[in-house]
Amino acid sequence: MSNTPLRLGLAGLGTVGVGVVKILQRHGAMLEARCGRPVRISAVSARSRARDRGVDLSAYAWEDDPVALARREDVDVLVEMIGGEDGPAKAAAVAALSAGKHVVTANKAMLARHGQELAELAEAAGAALRFEAAVAGGIPVVKALTEGLAANRVERVMGVMNGTCNYILTQMERTGADYAEVLAEAQRLGYAEADPAFDVGGVDAAHKLALLAAAAFGTRVDFEGVAIEGIERISLADIRAARDMGYRIKLLGVARMTEDGLEQRMTPCLVPAASALGQLDGVTNAVVLEGDFVGQTVFEGPGAGEGPTASAIMADVMDIAAGVRRPVFGAPAARLTAAPRAMDATPAAFYLRLTLADAPGVLAKIAFALGEEGVSIHRMRQYDHEGAAAPVLIVTHPARRVDIDAAMGRIGAMDESLATPVALRIEKV
Amino acid sequence: MSNTPLRLGLAGLGTVGVGVVKILQRHGAMLEARCGRPVRISAVSARSRARDRGVDLSAYAWEDDPVALARREDVDVLVEMIGGEDGPAKAAAVAALSAGKHVVTANKAMLARHGQELAELAEAAGAALRFEAAVAGGIPVVKALTEGLAANRVERVMGVMNGTCNYILTQMERTGADYAEVLAEAQRLGYAEADPAFDVGGVDAAHKLALLAAAAFGTRVDFEGVAIEGIERISLADIRAARDMGYRIKLLGVARMTEDGLEQRMTPCLVPAASALGQLDGVTNAVVLEGDFVGQTVFEGPGAGEGPTASAIMADVMDIAAGVRRPVFGAPAARLTAAPRAMDATPAAFYLRLTLADAPGVLAKIAFALGEEGVSIHRMRQYDHEGAAAPVLIVTHPARRVDIDAAMGRIGAMDESLATPVALRIEKV
Repeated sequence: MSNTPLRLGLAGLGTVGVGVVKILQRHGAMLEARCGRPVRISAVSARSRARDRGVDLSAYAWEDDPVALARREDVDVLVEMIGGEDGPAKAAAVAALSAGKHVVTANKAMLARHGQELAELAEAAGAALRFEAAVAGGIPVVKALTEGLAANRVERVMGVMNGTCNYILTQMERTGADYAEVLAEAQRLGYAEADPAFDVGGVDAAHKLALLAAAAFGTRVDFEGVAIEGIERISLADIRAARDMGYRIKLLGVARMTEDGLEQRMTPCLVPAASALGQLDGVTNAVVLEGDFVGQTVFEGPGAGEGPTASAIMADVMDIAAGVRRPVFGAPAARLTAAPRAMDATPAAFYLRLTLADAPGVLAKIAFALGEEGVSIHRMRQYDHEGAAAPVLIVTHPARRVDIDAAMGRIGAMDESLATPVALRIEKV
Repeated sequence: MSNTPLRLGLAGLGTVGVGVVKILQRHGAMLEARCGRPVRISAVSARSRARDRGVDLSAYAWEDDPVALARREDVDVLVEMIGGEDGPAKAAAVAALSAGKHVVTANKAMLARHGQELAELAEAAGAALRFEAAVAGGIPVVKALTEGLAANRVERVMGVMNGTCNYILTQMERTGADYAEVLAEAQRLGYAEADPAFDVGGVDAAHKLALLAAAAFGTRVDFEGVAIEGIERISLADIRAARDMGYRIKLLGVARMTEDGLEQRMTPCLVPAASALGQLDGVTNAVVLEGDFVGQTVFEGPGAGEGPTASAIMADVMDIAAGVRRPVFGAPAARLTAAPRAMDATPAAFYLRLTLADAPGVLAKIAFALGEEGVSIHRMRQYDHEGAAAPVLIVTHPARRVDIDAAMGRIGAMDESLATPVALRIEKV
């Protein structure tokens, strides 16, 4: 192996960029022993040169423009930590790949939108494009999927991949505070963005799921094909009722290849409280990978933050330094297929929470409406009345989402229904 | 990348060997797309040629002698699935590496004893020697450690890595049967060897820990340096008492680099019932890897069996096919250091179970003996008497093993002590 240093250009010096600098400054000799050649930073780029970031950047050249950074003669690898699906991040990535340079990125939004284009560009140029840090932070799950389980036909990929959502759901359960209170606290602590839609609306986690699905099934990244629902409408009542019946509510991503096509969902689901996903608390991420030979494997760890994300970026850099060249999404980009979308192709049991007037015959009406839509009841619980409203919880036998929605529409329209009915999928884990 | 097929010689056609044949027969085209070249079996070797293994072997040449298999012109990779730390397994591995051929092995015993020698041989010959299947079956944990977390200084490696032991402990708790009964059932079901010492005595799991420790800390494999204790003396009373206090008992491997040297233990420990390790049931394995940047990551999955083990072997084969050449234990073999052994260097809380005569002043005597040995009490519980014997449970403050052992010796020698005192470490997870 060549002893020539691998030279990095770091674009973006926020939390993650600073983490990468710290790893290289602290562990330079160890990294060299492990990947067989030195790894060095040539140049860096960020919006503000003046800002004190707590690390010494004086040894590195400075570029105001990340595209210029990507094109520097002394940069072999562009480490893109700018973020944003277009703009300077994409411009720099395209500039680097077009010049035959490698790109390591933490940018899930960019890859969810432009993954196919960038992968084709990289493979045509013989350059590496790697994104371990874009999915589940410090957990090496892209590597596990595309290399560790590469001999398997993957059957399902699942994950709790947004720490903010999991923190909010965990805190609601723990403290009994409602969604709005906990969200405000999360924002105060810096866990949630001021505009929370990206996190709690499920978009951020859906980006990650779309990338995992492409690598799992050999399909083109199809972010538009992910059915997304956030956690905004999850109430404390649902969290407690789910717990009562042995479940916990998680914002769960599921991707599965079905006979009808690729099913991708990022939605609040109930999972058994005793399962690895059900036991997940706080900001920890977990990804479940299921293959035809290996069976079920589970990977847990910190899904965000300076150290974990920088650790994932540097693992990609070290693979490049060691000469590893693999297709971006596990199989060559030209061979990735555009799978048809199969939204909710897999029937599942559903949890239903109905708020009903305490009137004679109302349960019979509900049962009749469900039955007419082809939904059968597995378990039912009625709780103590809160005034005139009787909360009724139902767990159905496996049903199609479309039938559940039809039944919910009918029930919601009844005079006896005092609040919008809630229906959440129960995912088998 | 070359389009030349990578040609395998399979040595050993037991469960795992048959799994490897199945993967190649079922997923040949997918594997080729993923690693850029065909992977084929040239020849196989096993003890009995006549045995029906349920797979068609007619397309492959047969060798009676695995060393002859390793030396065949049409074999690029020896896949060693014979087992045993010496004998034909090692002879074949040495023959292959000496001829510059790659070796993929599931043989933890061989590597635990001869890992340094074989790694040096492989690296001198420019050949790969890979062992993902030797540790934690289908979980790609060697890859996670040596590649996914390669940018971290590893602080601790822990794992529940023997499915038989975990099955026995889980079944004892679930059914209330004692150790001997559950072991007999496990043997009947084929989970445990007829001579169980290898499994339940902790040797098998200690082999795995020694390999992980070498990869984690850049040290030479030091199996002799692992403090080993099996689960034979764990009683139902301990399992229940631990549960009562919020813990579960696991055969837990822990490796840690301390100021005094490398600490390696494979012993029954208490872990919090609510932790990922505490929640592990049955034959599932789990490995915890902690790094200075990534923090704590947890990897769970099937630790043995045809499909999982074959999946791990084929991941190694596919890396070789894709041209990946990394040092065997993460860093070059010549640079691995012989770390001094630091047995139980890290103090811990201990769980003590004493069986005492119900006599006045006995608890005072116990407390005095513990205090004199420098062990202080954090929690104590006394249970209902069983006849004249009063079971007393103690959780200590962090103490050194040597002080605990001294105190247990003193207490065991007292007239009031009606059974050998039990002391189990409580590992922080």
